Amino acid sequence: MTTVLGKPLKRRDAEPKLRGDARYTDDLHLPGLLHARLVTSPYAHARIVRIDCDAARRTPGVVAVFTGHDLLPEGPEPAERARHLLARDKVIYAGQPVAIVVAESPYVAADAAALVEVEYDELPAVVDPLAAMTPEAPVIRPKELEGEWAEAGMHATVSGGEELDVRRLPANVTNAVRFQRGDVMQGFASADVVIERTYRTPFVHQAYLEPHASVAVPRPDGGVTIYTTTQGQFYCRNVTATTLGLPHEMVTIVPMEVGGGFGGKTVLLEPLVAAVALRLGRPVKLVLTRTEEFLLATPAPAAIFELRAGARRDGTLTALRARVIFDSGAYPGAPVTIALLLLGGTYRWEHLDLLGYEVLTNKPGTGAYRAPGVPQATFALEQLIDELARAIGQDPLELRLRNAARTGDLQPNGVPWPPIGLVDVLERARQHPLWRSRQRRPNEGWGIAVGGWPGGIEPCAANIRLNHDGTFTVTLGAIDITGTHTVLAMIAAEVLEQPVERIRVKLLPTDGAPYAGMSGGSKITYTVGLAVQAAAEDAKRQLLEIAANELEAAPEDLELVDGAIRVRGMPDRQITLSEIAHRSMVFGGKYAPVYGTGRSVVRQQSPGFNAQIAHVAVDPDTGEVEVLDLVAIQDVGRALNPALVEEQVHGGVGQGIGWALHEAMRWSENGQPLNPSFLDYDLPKASQLPPIAVELVEVPSPIGPFGAKGVGEPPVVPTAAAIANAIADAIGVHLSELPITPERVLAALRDKAVS
Amino acid sequence: MTTVLGKPLKRRDAEPKLRGDARYTDDLHLPGLLHARLVTSPYAHARIVRIDCDAARRTPGVVAVFTGHDLLPEGPEPAERARHLLARDKVIYAGQPVAIVVAESPYVAADAAALVEVEYDELPAVVDPLAAMTPEAPVIRPKELEGEWAEAGMHATVSGGEELDVRRLPANVTNAVRFQRGDVMQGFASADVVIERTYRTPFVHQAYLEPHASVAVPRPDGGVTIYTTTQGQFYCRNVTATTLGLPHEMVTIVPMEVGGGFGGKTVLLEPLVAAVALRLGRPVKLVLTRTEEFLLATPAPAAIFELRAGARRDGTLTALRARVIFDSGAYPGAPVTIALLLLGGTYRWEHLDLLGYEVLTNKPGTGAYRAPGVPQATFALEQLIDELARAIGQDPLELRLRNAARTGDLQPNGVPWPPIGLVDVLERARQHPLWRSRQRRPNEGWGIAVGGWPGGIEPCAANIRLNHDGTFTVTLGAIDITGTHTVLAMIAAEVLEQPVERIRVKLLPTDGAPYAGMSGGSKITYTVGLAVQAAAEDAKRQLLEIAANELEAAPEDLELVDGAIRVRGMPDRQITLSEIAHRSMVFGGKYAPVYGTGRSVVRQQSPGFNAQIAHVAVDPDTGEVEVLDLVAIQDVGRALNPALVEEQVHGGVGQGIGWALHEAMRWSENGQPLNPSFLDYDLPKASQLPPIAVELVEVPSPIGPFGAKGVGEPPVVPTAAAIANAIADAIGVHLSELPITPERVLAALRDKAVS
Repeated sequence: MTTVLGKPLKRRDAEPKLRGDARYTDDLHLPGLLHARLVTSPYAHARIVRIDCDAARRTPGVVAVFTGHDLLPEGPEPAERARHLLARDKVIYAGQPVAIVVAESPYVAADAAALVEVEYDELPAVVDPLAAMTPEAPVIRPKELEGEWAEAGMHATVSGGEELDVRRLPANVTNAVRFQRGDVMQGFASADVVIERTYRTPFVHQAYLEPHASVAVPRPDGGVTIYTTTQGQFYCRNVTATTLGLPHEMVTIVPMEVGGGFGGKTVLLEPLVAAVALRLGRPVKLVLTRTEEFLLATPAPAAIFELRAGARRDGTLTALRARVIFDSGAYPGAPVTIALLLLGGTYRWEHLDLLGYEVLTNKPGTGAYRAPGVPQATFALEQLIDELARAIGQDPLELRLRNAARTGDLQPNGVPWPPIGLVDVLERARQHPLWRSRQRRPNEGWGIAVGGWPGGIEPCAANIRLNHDGTFTVTLGAIDITGTHTVLAMIAAEVLEQPVERIRVKLLPTDGAPYAGMSGGSKITYTVGLAVQAAAEDAKRQLLEIAANELEAAPEDLELVDGAIRVRGMPDRQITLSEIAHRSMVFGGKYAPVYGTGRSVVRQQSPGFNAQIAHVAVDPDTGEVEVLDLVAIQDVGRALNPALVEEQVHGGVGQGIGWALHEAMRWSENGQPLNPSFLDYDLPKASQLPPIAVELVEVPSPIGPFGAKGVGEPPVVPTAAAIANAIADAIGVHLSELPITPERVLAALRDKAVS
Repeated sequence: MTTVLGKPLKRRDAEPKLRGDARYTDDLHLPGLLHARLVTSPYAHARIVRIDCDAARRTPGVVAVFTGHDLLPEGPEPAERARHLLARDKVIYAGQPVAIVVAESPYVAADAAALVEVEYDELPAVVDPLAAMTPEAPVIRPKELEGEWAEAGMHATVSGGEELDVRRLPANVTNAVRFQRGDVMQGFASADVVIERTYRTPFVHQAYLEPHASVAVPRPDGGVTIYTTTQGQFYCRNVTATTLGLPHEMVTIVPMEVGGGFGGKTVLLEPLVAAVALRLGRPVKLVLTRTEEFLLATPAPAAIFELRAGARRDGTLTALRARVIFDSGAYPGAPVTIALLLLGGTYRWEHLDLLGYEVLTNKPGTGAYRAPGVPQATFALEQLIDELARAIGQDPLELRLRNAARTGDLQPNGVPWPPIGLVDVLERARQHPLWRSRQRRPNEGWGIAVGGWPGGIEPCAANIRLNHDGTFTVTLGAIDITGTHTVLAMIAAEVLEQPVERIRVKLLPTDGAPYAGMSGGSKITYTVGLAVQAAAEDAKRQLLEIAANELEAAPEDLELVDGAIRVRGMPDRQITLSEIAHRSMVFGGKYAPVYGTGRSVVRQQSPGFNAQIAHVAVDPDTGEVEVLDLVAIQDVGRALNPALVEEQVHGGVGQGIGWALHEAMRWSENGQPLNPSFLDYDLPKASQLPPIAVELVEVPSPIGPFGAKGVGEPPVVPTAAAIANAIADAIGVHLSELPITPERVLAALRDKAVS
């Protein structure tokens, strides 16, 4: 059989989604289903004095109203977003849920929610992270309450770094990490040029089309089954169970279609909805409104990068010092470490001193969003590299190539880079026509940037079963958000030498699935792919054993063909897969069922890097930036399905353009959200995206299935930086704050004219 | 840890069932659910001239009415009950469905079904199987249409026998099997006594409390998901899929609780309900009424045993000749072969000639019911043995012991008996006080009978997974109808040396489960138990490997304790199972998840035998028989859970008492059902059951898990024969027809007085 890997097959979930057949959580209608609506805080920081639920409870059709006093245990309020079911004593961001109304219809619930009267005692709010770090800042939560985990940190596997004792830092600083190498003072002293810059990136929302939605159904055994839109069912289950004080296995998550996640759909409402359903003994549904998504979900954190870097004229990067502040909103968990590692690890700096802080402010909690922390760091680093190149009179791409990390170079945490293709994507960029054809034209510019993602790893298992009709079914617990089930089917087909149409993939709920981690961190193909490959090899061995017996031949003399196994060179001596199934899965059958299992544990990442070239035009009168062309070059290890890989790159670049030119969540000084809707939050439209040319580089991973690396995260990483560098090329000034709006471009042009 | 096997643990499904928490198919309420009602034939044999559905279709709330012409393909009408969705051209039994009405409510459907007008052209019906075998009998279906499979035959694995060419036999004879050994004429010639008797047993209904119920939900992909009460989800799926012309994997069966099956719940309505749901594109529910259960489900077939047997005064059994006729109703599939094998294989006959026929009549199709065919055969054989013993002046138990088959003796098909405990249960009966204390008292009697079941075998697979909370989950595809999930948990607990509370068992639907056969034939513990045992051993090996690494010890120096693994003799050096789970099933985890798989294929049965002693009193004035005491002695190999084994024996004996004294479905000469309800069909009441003493004999199986054999079927086998022998002991006449009603007892007493 010719190989199926490398073919650009369509995503299997595409057709049902396009036809409207995919079933989302809000499509669930159960007999006796109740509907919940949240009551949210209008204040960013306030004591809750009193909640009057009487009018709401008296509304016909209302079944119950719960407040934080009803649902939270005694003691400090939880320091994790999903466990903090409702505010109890005080609210810490505008939009925080303070009560939940449950009614027979969603309309009654909404009407009654408006009747809940909450009396607040407003407190001073702090919105700016630098202000939040000052000793006089309002304290958002007492220091001893830090959560032990950081959700965003789960998206990349990093280690090392000096963790500073946050108890000695200001009250709102909940995490501090430092990486050092050599002596930066010496590095700056030995530099020919030293540049100091500050960069800022805002809160950016994942802006999935489908809002958070969960249906919790209480069970007679005291457990609860939750139908929900989640990227990580086991993680969702574990957090929900521990929050509710139930054994893990008393909570079952049934994963529904995910209408966009991008890191933002892990666990959010499930513990709250389950708690309410268990109290009432009836199924309860909660679907967020779009405004609530902006008010109380978990967007990407804002960040500030205060950088100082030195270089010699020969192109040596002597030192990088960084003070990085992540504005984590009301809950800890920002991706500080991963941001520092990429900031300091992408190039060979002689000396490093990287200090990162996580700071709480009176804004919504933050969470993972595609390559958490790294688009922010790359926006800063890659402009700084351009400025250094200009300052020492070198070509920016050549400076990158000279200093780009190679396999075995040490990352800031002292861990050597595994095999990486950073140089390879830069080399490819150097040869690309868009880069070679750049020229001086008024108000046009070309920019290059590169960045990467280390990749997530997590143990997992999978099965594959031969069916009576000669097909196979892969059973697993990994949710498909990017077409991974299509790719996993291809991997099984490749091993079993069967057409991919013969491979089904079945996602099982938590109560019966083999374990798999969250679909995030660019790790499903990389890790679950290995488990599926191993399971298919196990099944193949079983198949050949049975066929050898039936055909009276040695297994090594057999070959798999479409739907059958035959003696090599003797097409007449064959047995079909369906026959094997019928001889094994039948009363009195002769063979054990063909049922392969694969378990995978990967201890080393296979980071993926992406270089982008942007070509922009800037209108000096309006400040409008138009991206005319964008080339994205990514090392994917091996493109198992090039169409799906390119789709990931397209999607990542599209979101990168959102980071670059459009998106920012904004708050007033007292913490009032200013743009919590798609009317006011500027998501890029399809018409605003440039032609995106994707080039795939294949530096095979020594670990991933058939050489594959994770591909989902890298493409979003360098886009904003490449565009910023192109803008600087066009108008001669670097824009240091995202998004690069027309107003900011005009302001930069004015500043330049003044200086 | 002390062993859990052998402990009388409660069934896990008992509590939810007692509390009313178990969810049956009829408890399902889906949005948009339609309800179906059948229109059934009032004639046992008739051509369908015309069906007028107009009035039914015009009824408000009716969505559709289908007839056989709508749903059956061209060509001959199917010869299998489940595939014969509706009669099309003629009806072949009274109660056969001819149309199905689908409406928005079950009440509308029932009302509209009454409005369907069917014009019939009545044909002569044949109800008596002997009449059906005559050349002049009405032909129920053309000869070429025999089905290739026999459902009841799936419940025991038998082989051999001479299959006669049915095309040369009368039209309604659809199967004929012959087993011969030696020369029976020579055997009769060498006998001191020869006895010839005819025995009859009626149609008996499985009489499960829950009627057949199915809900079919069409899927956007063209497939269908069916929630149904079935003992065999994969078998149900395969029959449904091939009937509908769908690939197997386009049909998913979600197995619901089974409210009693006893062999009668495999596949019946699923293809019909699915066909209708697919036509309408909406979910459809069909629940049979109790009367419909009697009219159109699949009870046990009636049988006639014409036996001639010879013996010498020394106790040698010289010859057995049998002509056995199974009245299969309107569809082929009666358990002829298995009945002949037990008839001729239980004792050492020098010469054998066993001939079995399956005959069609205008009555409902028949199916499996607990030890299909064998209670019937045993009722005949065990009375004949008693009569032979009396005739040669030997004790009936001693004659049995002398001639009982031993391990290695040949069955009628020439296959040697595997290890069996037939002699062992008889020995135990001989020593039992109830047997030793028998005496002559007016109208009281004691009877012994023995019988067995070869046991089913079928390949299967199962998984076991370590959970984060330190529990385990067994995942499998075998349905629990008798507490088998409790026993499978015990097997896993035993292997893993954990308290059984740590083991969960999760039944998966067909689309994700490892394969397992139907829960029937006394085979789940015997076969799936082996797969679970192997899976648990696989998981244990993985656990010890991880613990050895973490504890820096050799795996052989470790021991499993409750929830942990520790270094033997060093209680401080241990790691909990939950810790192992958290180190493997976590982002960046160090070990593959603990996930064991077991596949099992068994090629040899481990038959189970049961001897029963009945003590009865007969009222000579009324003919009433009271069973005063009953002892059931069963070889179970090893009683993994004695409470559940005893429960099986109790249940089997209870049903055996139904066979003996109460149950018979009856029809008029033209095929009208005479007692299709629980008002008229005499199911024994709890108050009519005697004290049942259970004794377990353990002759370990060399194959089954920890020595276990299948236990569900044997206890029903000898009950009727033991009671009949006790009655003969009491009143001096053998009752040759079941059930032994007061009328029949009085008639026998009258005949005796006359003779």
